[in-house]
Amino acid sequence: MRHFSVELEELNQSLLQMGGLVEQSIRRAVQSVVEREKEVAKQVMRDEERVNQMQLEIDASTTRLLALNQPVARDLRRLTAILKINTDLERMGDLAVNVAERAISLANRPRLKAMVDIPKMASLTESMLLRSLDAFVKGDADLATSVLTSDNEVDALRDAVYDEMVALMQREPMAVPGAVDLMFVARNLERIADHSTNIAEDVIFLVKGEDVRHHHSHSVPLA
Amino acid sequence: MRHFSVELEELNQSLLQMGGLVEQSIRRAVQSVVEREKEVAKQVMRDEERVNQMQLEIDASTTRLLALNQPVARDLRRLTAILKINTDLERMGDLAVNVAERAISLANRPRLKAMVDIPKMASLTESMLLRSLDAFVKGDADLATSVLTSDNEVDALRDAVYDEMVALMQREPMAVPGAVDLMFVARNLERIADHSTNIAEDVIFLVKGEDVRHHHSHSVPLA
Repeated sequence: MRHFSVELEELNQSLLQMGGLVEQSIRRAVQSVVEREKEVAKQVMRDEERVNQMQLEIDASTTRLLALNQPVARDLRRLTAILKINTDLERMGDLAVNVAERAISLANRPRLKAMVDIPKMASLTESMLLRSLDAFVKGDADLATSVLTSDNEVDALRDAVYDEMVALMQREPMAVPGAVDLMFVARNLERIADHSTNIAEDVIFLVKGEDVRHHHSHSVPLA
Repeated sequence: MRHFSVELEELNQSLLQMGGLVEQSIRRAVQSVVEREKEVAKQVMRDEERVNQMQLEIDASTTRLLALNQPVARDLRRLTAILKINTDLERMGDLAVNVAERAISLANRPRLKAMVDIPKMASLTESMLLRSLDAFVKGDADLATSVLTSDNEVDALRDAVYDEMVALMQREPMAVPGAVDLMFVARNLERIADHSTNIAEDVIFLVKGEDVRHHHSHSVPLA
């Protein structure tokens, strides 16, 4: 049997590779919304299959490592964290597909003027994913904590998008379907950010051995 | 040390208790929307704390059982399934709170006529949760499969709600904020149903030892 630490390192690498793919899908999905690029949106949909496949592989490898090595303490916590992060990444991939579907719907409608806060939300959301994975690799609780702070900013941007879209729909009935699409784009980005928050909380638990879930100050999402 | 099977049975009971509490919150949240009952909505918010507490306890017990007993094969699969179902239930509790928040917002606005499909979605969604937990307890793959079928019905009802709300918003600009609330109620119910689907898939994996995730036919959610 190969050494446990080697296999754990390989598992870490697979998780980061999956994270990179998910990050690419989020970036492309937002690009397809902003630039009305249907082909880019379709690429995001095609890549979902690979994300799903990676989730199954990482799940299987983690379960196998648990069964064969019966790790305790820190190694056990690390493996259960990988199981959870894996689930979060796969859901983020699904949410990127949701955004890409809205992009196709939007590209088939007249262009809406308002879209100021979507790119801002998107870049903050991507940064949260990158930081949460980086924090996991480095075991950096401070970096993970910075992700929790950003989540409140993302929630504020989502509220701004909602308010803007409600006002637009009341002013221009023709704009309703497109405005609904943009509201759901904002909602999906906010949920992607929530998954980065989950990852960050797992990292803090891993590093400090304390459970911060349900404790940090967290604006309640209204959706 | 107490016998593993006794502790596993206690863990099952805790999970079912949490499931019952989450089911109650979903039911009350929908009631608060339909009957414009702000007090009922606030009860859902207060109960979230208990759901969160139960999640932490079940997580801790499961991790302890994993560490102390180092189970293999079926017992290991059962424990990793409990970890996942626990996460799903906690998220469903969060989504019930989202619905309750929309209920309060709706109760402060003029009553909207349209709300036909929300109670239908809600009762199907509750039934999916009950069936998925029942399937887990009984190890019943057929019952779990019935949950996957219902998920497609829930998605169809959500589409009907969306279409109705878009038409309403285009007709009556004053109804926009309330219609947005109802769209998000439908969206949250659909996501609650998705979590029951996750649980059902875990049950099928547990019983049949095969991974049905990403394989069953599943209408793609547009949101």
